[in-house]
Amino acid sequence: MDAHSRTARDDSRLARWEDHVELPLALGSLIYLAAYAVHVLSPGMAAIGHDICLGVLYTTWAVFGVDYAVRWRLSGRGPSFVRTHGLDTVVLILPLLRPLRIVKVYQAMARRRGVPRLSLYARVVVYAGLATLLLGFAGALAVYQQERGAPGANIRTFGDSLWWTATTLTTVGYGDVVPVTSWGRVIAVGVMACGLALLGAVTGSFSSWLLQVFSREGDEQPPGS
Amino acid sequence: MDAHSRTARDDSRLARWEDHVELPLALGSLIYLAAYAVHVLSPGMAAIGHDICLGVLYTTWAVFGVDYAVRWRLSGRGPSFVRTHGLDTVVLILPLLRPLRIVKVYQAMARRRGVPRLSLYARVVVYAGLATLLLGFAGALAVYQQERGAPGANIRTFGDSLWWTATTLTTVGYGDVVPVTSWGRVIAVGVMACGLALLGAVTGSFSSWLLQVFSREGDEQPPGS
Amino acid sequence: MDAHSRTARDDSRLARWEDHVELPLALGSLIYLAAYAVHVLSPGMAAIGHDICLGVLYTTWAVFGVDYAVRWRLSGRGPSFVRTHGLDTVVLILPLLRPLRIVKVYQAMARRRGVPRLSLYARVVVYAGLATLLLGFAGALAVYQQERGAPGANIRTFGDSLWWTATTLTTVGYGDVVPVTSWGRVIAVGVMACGLALLGAVTGSFSSWLLQVFSREGDEQPPGS
Amino acid sequence: MDAHSRTARDDSRLARWEDHVELPLALGSLIYLAAYAVHVLSPGMAAIGHDICLGVLYTTWAVFGVDYAVRWRLSGRGPSFVRTHGLDTVVLILPLLRPLRIVKVYQAMARRRGVPRLSLYARVVVYAGLATLLLGFAGALAVYQQERGAPGANIRTFGDSLWWTATTLTTVGYGDVVPVTSWGRVIAVGVMACGLALLGAVTGSFSSWLLQVFSREGDEQPPGS
Repeated sequence: MDAHSRTARDDSRLARWEDHVELPLALGSLIYLAAYAVHVLSPGMAAIGHDICLGVLYTTWAVFGVDYAVRWRLSGRGPSFVRTHGLDTVVLILPLLRPLRIVKVYQAMARRRGVPRLSLYARVVVYAGLATLLLGFAGALAVYQQERGAPGANIRTFGDSLWWTATTLTTVGYGDVVPVTSWGRVIAVGVMACGLALLGAVTGSFSSWLLQVFSREGDEQPPGS
Repeated sequence: MDAHSRTARDDSRLARWEDHVELPLALGSLIYLAAYAVHVLSPGMAAIGHDICLGVLYTTWAVFGVDYAVRWRLSGRGPSFVRTHGLDTVVLILPLLRPLRIVKVYQAMARRRGVPRLSLYARVVVYAGLATLLLGFAGALAVYQQERGAPGANIRTFGDSLWWTATTLTTVGYGDVVPVTSWGRVIAVGVMACGLALLGAVTGSFSSWLLQVFSREGDEQPPGS
Repeated sequence: MDAHSRTARDDSRLARWEDHVELPLALGSLIYLAAYAVHVLSPGMAAIGHDICLGVLYTTWAVFGVDYAVRWRLSGRGPSFVRTHGLDTVVLILPLLRPLRIVKVYQAMARRRGVPRLSLYARVVVYAGLATLLLGFAGALAVYQQERGAPGANIRTFGDSLWWTATTLTTVGYGDVVPVTSWGRVIAVGVMACGLALLGAVTGSFSSWLLQVFSREGDEQPPGS
Repeated sequence: MDAHSRTARDDSRLARWEDHVELPLALGSLIYLAAYAVHVLSPGMAAIGHDICLGVLYTTWAVFGVDYAVRWRLSGRGPSFVRTHGLDTVVLILPLLRPLRIVKVYQAMARRRGVPRLSLYARVVVYAGLATLLLGFAGALAVYQQERGAPGANIRTFGDSLWWTATTLTTVGYGDVVPVTSWGRVIAVGVMACGLALLGAVTGSFSSWLLQVFSREGDEQPPGS
């Protein structure tokens, strides 16, 4: 068996693996996020509850690690896998960024259903909007965890944290509530960077979609003729 | 009569209905907004005045509901109507967002007049700008209603609320006046999301229009030659 | 002589008029802006100085009015002129917005020189950047004039006003200095609206230009081959 | 030898010079930035350390000047070189803006490697993102140097300065930390202008790339068929 056919077989096995695990992994992401949310938002919970949450967090993380290792193995590539799968590597290290991967799940689901129902721009708006919501929720949780007990903090409730996230993702930035701790600020910069790119995609696609709607209108015949 | 021709007849009846009601409904939206504005901005008005405003509000809302039901019926579709007419469903539940529907009125009016007079980009700028103004006004009213009496609020007059709306829609966000109540913040997030998308359309189209003007200039012959 | 040839003759006379006056009018805009700047920035100047400034302001404004009237007359159109020349009408009423008209001067100068030297995107960046600078300067002056003596104002020097303008035009909006008077806020909203559209054009064109540079790079042959 | 062939020979010599010096100059830029960072961030360092830093700063600056002079000479042009090489002139006067020139180094490296590996949009995102990071770091250093000792300053640590830079480049602008000195504000306006353009390129390209990914998805055949 020559190298070429081995790569082709590897590719097909890799595609089959991804087909089988993407839905469970997406579910795993949501479980991870839910466990993290319960852990952060229930300070008064019994110690056993926090232990369960942390157990779920580490288990799902381990599952993500196994998936990454299997895909690396199946790809039949050396260290170059880490570089060419940059997004995968990043979301392995920072699992809260996993929502960014839903584009793959979305693609797979669209593939199965056959022809997509929404126009191109609408799909980008839906995908980027969904990723923004999930990332924003994860960011609000992470910043809240850092700021909660800090002296002089003005993010005191999770509601404040959600409000801060909304003003940050839209780049409005009132500054009435802001992170004051070092780690809170580091997470905030990450939220800004991701959110800016994703919301740029939303507004850009919405703008293109509006242009499309208006340009179609000009070609249309009046219904009464 | 087979299913296909029934759908075709339904479509034609639906189109005729929409042709007849769109102008009255647009008028209804403006009446709704005006009644809401009078209700919110006249705290000193006699009780009978507020009762009239609320009566107008509920009546116009009921009219919107009837129109929605008729269109659902005429479309001959089942529950899928709710999903495919997402914007219609949203503006039925939140009538203050109705200005977003003016794109349909605009299209219908442009159709009747025949050839549109403005270029594509100019039309998008005009439509999105108009929708932004109406939505901004509705948002300023709604936030003002929430914040007016709240303890520690810094949006104290309707002028403050308009100023807050302008700084929010342009994503400048000084933070000198900000909503502090929970509902005020929820409405604010809605204003941000809608405004961001609409203003993105305005700036994107303006930018494209400017590029068009400048690229045409290069092709033009000097008038003296 | 039929209506068509009269319109053609009118058009040619209008074009000739615009060719002759556009440079003087652009100069007039700068004189207007300079007189306004001296009037606002020299509170300690003798009364006679302020009278001269105001005289220059009203004279240049009158000149703009005469030009508008002549062009209306030469166009041979009725009231529709006001609508089709919307930008001209706006800059007649608000002469501080006149810098927006430099696109016409720019076009005329480019026409005379023949082939433009800069690429399309570079020209848009230069034009929109220049218009932003002039409008920003005019806006900083106007806001400073309103805020200067107001109780509780935090725009106290012209430097503060320039800093406020820069943070507003870029939509950063720190909120450390903000207008507090009603007229200051009205002007501020105008600055936001204009600046947003113009800077959107700058960033959009810069982005397109960068894409062009990078896509050309891919086609290029290495110089050593 | 006629003028044309002399120009051609000049161009080839200029290209050869640029090929040879671009990598050393990029290294020089980083050394300049590093020396500036050590100078600014180590106030407690012995006087000799600061002298070494300043020595490195002036030496690298002189090297940039020599390169500029040689390229001017080799181009065989007169004063028009200053105008046509605007970016080069700007980064000679303000060496902290040098990171903007990495596009040339990047192009040269891509040329040597042959076919580029990344798609067009990905390359623009990487280039503009890298330039933003370097410019942001340089801007944070420069603002910190101005604000450090100023009375009433709220940028007191380099961490504050980095946080301020991040909120400024993303146009969020909370306003919790802002420059208060005149020079700090001048630098801040420069950071805003550069950052806005570069980040606009990042978001624009990311948006285009996302559209590309989603439009490709629609054409793809399901892997199982």
